[in-house]
Amino acid sequence: MYDFTFHNPTKIIFGRNTEVQIGSELKNAGISKVLFVFGKSSIKASGLYDRVVESLNQSGIHFTEFSGVSSNPILSHTHRGVRLAMQAKVQAVLAVGGGSVIDESKAIAVGAVSDKDVWEYFIGEQVTRALPVFTILTLAATGSEMNGNAVITREETQQKYNIGSAHVYPKVSILNPELTFSVSPEYSAYGAVDAIAHVIEGYFTSRLGGPAIQDRLVENIIRTVIDTQNVIAREPDNYNARAEFMWAATLALNGLPPAGIGAYSFPNHMIEHALSAMFNIAHGAGLAIVIPAWMRWYQPLKRDKFRRFAQEIFGLETGEQGIDALEDWFEKIGAPIRLDDAGIPASDIDSIAENANTLARRWGIDDVYTPGVIAEILRLAV
Amino acid sequence: MYDFTFHNPTKIIFGRNTEVQIGSELKNAGISKVLFVFGKSSIKASGLYDRVVESLNQSGIHFTEFSGVSSNPILSHTHRGVRLAMQAKVQAVLAVGGGSVIDESKAIAVGAVSDKDVWEYFIGEQVTRALPVFTILTLAATGSEMNGNAVITREETQQKYNIGSAHVYPKVSILNPELTFSVSPEYSAYGAVDAIAHVIEGYFTSRLGGPAIQDRLVENIIRTVIDTQNVIAREPDNYNARAEFMWAATLALNGLPPAGIGAYSFPNHMIEHALSAMFNIAHGAGLAIVIPAWMRWYQPLKRDKFRRFAQEIFGLETGEQGIDALEDWFEKIGAPIRLDDAGIPASDIDSIAENANTLARRWGIDDVYTPGVIAEILRLAV
Repeated sequence: MYDFTFHNPTKIIFGRNTEVQIGSELKNAGISKVLFVFGKSSIKASGLYDRVVESLNQSGIHFTEFSGVSSNPILSHTHRGVRLAMQAKVQAVLAVGGGSVIDESKAIAVGAVSDKDVWEYFIGEQVTRALPVFTILTLAATGSEMNGNAVITREETQQKYNIGSAHVYPKVSILNPELTFSVSPEYSAYGAVDAIAHVIEGYFTSRLGGPAIQDRLVENIIRTVIDTQNVIAREPDNYNARAEFMWAATLALNGLPPAGIGAYSFPNHMIEHALSAMFNIAHGAGLAIVIPAWMRWYQPLKRDKFRRFAQEIFGLETGEQGIDALEDWFEKIGAPIRLDDAGIPASDIDSIAENANTLARRWGIDDVYTPGVIAEILRLAV
Repeated sequence: MYDFTFHNPTKIIFGRNTEVQIGSELKNAGISKVLFVFGKSSIKASGLYDRVVESLNQSGIHFTEFSGVSSNPILSHTHRGVRLAMQAKVQAVLAVGGGSVIDESKAIAVGAVSDKDVWEYFIGEQVTRALPVFTILTLAATGSEMNGNAVITREETQQKYNIGSAHVYPKVSILNPELTFSVSPEYSAYGAVDAIAHVIEGYFTSRLGGPAIQDRLVENIIRTVIDTQNVIAREPDNYNARAEFMWAATLALNGLPPAGIGAYSFPNHMIEHALSAMFNIAHGAGLAIVIPAWMRWYQPLKRDKFRRFAQEIFGLETGEQGIDALEDWFEKIGAPIRLDDAGIPASDIDSIAENANTLARRWGIDDVYTPGVIAEILRLAV
């Protein structure tokens, strides 16, 4: 077991109707003015917006609205949020939405207390403080509700970069599985792929394969994601399935699975970030294309682990069978599994590989993931 | 899945030689004066005391020593610690030891900032503040290093009571598995029994049996405890086994396993607290006696869950076989499994049952656990 530090101070409030607690949570934290960040009008149509506003009003929390966050949130919109947060002198950022809304809210929280352009923090500047972030989650997928990560895309340069800082862990995240009943089959599937992607990166790429307790934790999360998605596909408003999936997706990227596994890398995220930066596809959709291709390329390096994966997750014998089964399952739940499924031409593989390689250099894995290797992986997804 | 709140702000620093970070962790938290609490002289003999002192000195942390904490820590000694903490005007409490040292340190941290007798907080007064607690763990067992619980025994009335408060979660806990190499085979075994006890209470007694993801988490912890203890029995200084066991014991009572399982109870702890309050046996030893007896008594109420336990943990068919296998394993690792093994006379069963029933009343499970029922369970351990 390798040395590690685990510190996750986010308070999770999980259950039915919990969003009405947001006002009192903010008030208890001494906050009286927030930037209320959300995406499109869906939270108004569902009535969530009204419930949040009522809770804020009841606790005397003033708020400034900032809407229009897109999937794959972009820097120019983040800049507008930072300016608004500064003008309104808010004390906290309240994100109501999925991972994109939370990620942009974290970026705004950093930018709002800095003299620097917030993009500086995505290209190397150290985050030293941020406004406190509170979240109400409406889409289970990214785990952003319980970690210190945020990903933003700079449109003009097609750079999809991330920050990671202890200062942007949400103070409080409210998880009501009922708020995800209306998530479409596609986005439920993408969320499932994303949660699986978060745990398999460490599971396969850590040097010694991970301590048994951590391997079993990962396998538990993957099995939960698969079992619950199979129920959700039939019954979108099955509370227990939505709830277990939501909790599994949170645990998948809250720092617990990789504790003690040592160094590992994020090759699937690296390649996918290039895909979605260049073609603006959903992150989970891009991952569903990349993962089986990467697994086939990587399997010869970790045959035992891929065999274990096949056995523990699918009850199958060989590593190849496990990869096939995962790919089949991605297809079954409605995720794309080939570049062509997402309208990405094979002729762009080399430029995608170049883009991904800039991330590989940033993340220090460019000795393995040269543009040539990335292109080789992507050709397995043609 | 039931509603839950999960909030565990303790920072875990895990790995070899990590104890030398204690000075800088205190300094970074703005602390310059601590009460340094420990048990007997073993930390001096091992050299740990010197390394801690050197780290404190290097960071300019002043300290006042308070030693002599016993296994099953007692109120009179806690009172002395509270007085010393007040006199020395310390800003934090540093516990260097196992669960007993940490529990007493938490109680001191509460008492040192209160006008009331600290026992008041064990019999109903709400904890509203406490000095920050820092720990260096030397015995993996109780999970106190990452939770808000503390158990103290009031000697004259043989009351072994607990507090549970967000204010006593350690700020930082340092876990170096090497510090547990010297733990005796008996205490390694008791630690294993304790960790298993922590997760099976919720696993068996929650009303609906728990969501699948949580059941598998519990089974993962139990399997890890059993597998690692089997290695530790042969190789006390096997780093990976000590490390995985240490991490499993921490996870067993850090709030994660019961998330979403709904209401559950602690019958084994209830009965054991009476045993160790009256006979001053090690907590894990008492649990090893109580658990198989309680399981045999409780099994008819949850046959499916006991069958699952047998299958998942031991690969056996029936609930009875699972209980027998666990009992055999307790015996194999050197834990007592009958009252007689710990020198407790069967003639005392009725008075033990009366003592335990006072806890059952405190914990609101006295409708099931009458003195008669508790005595019936204990007779299964004769």
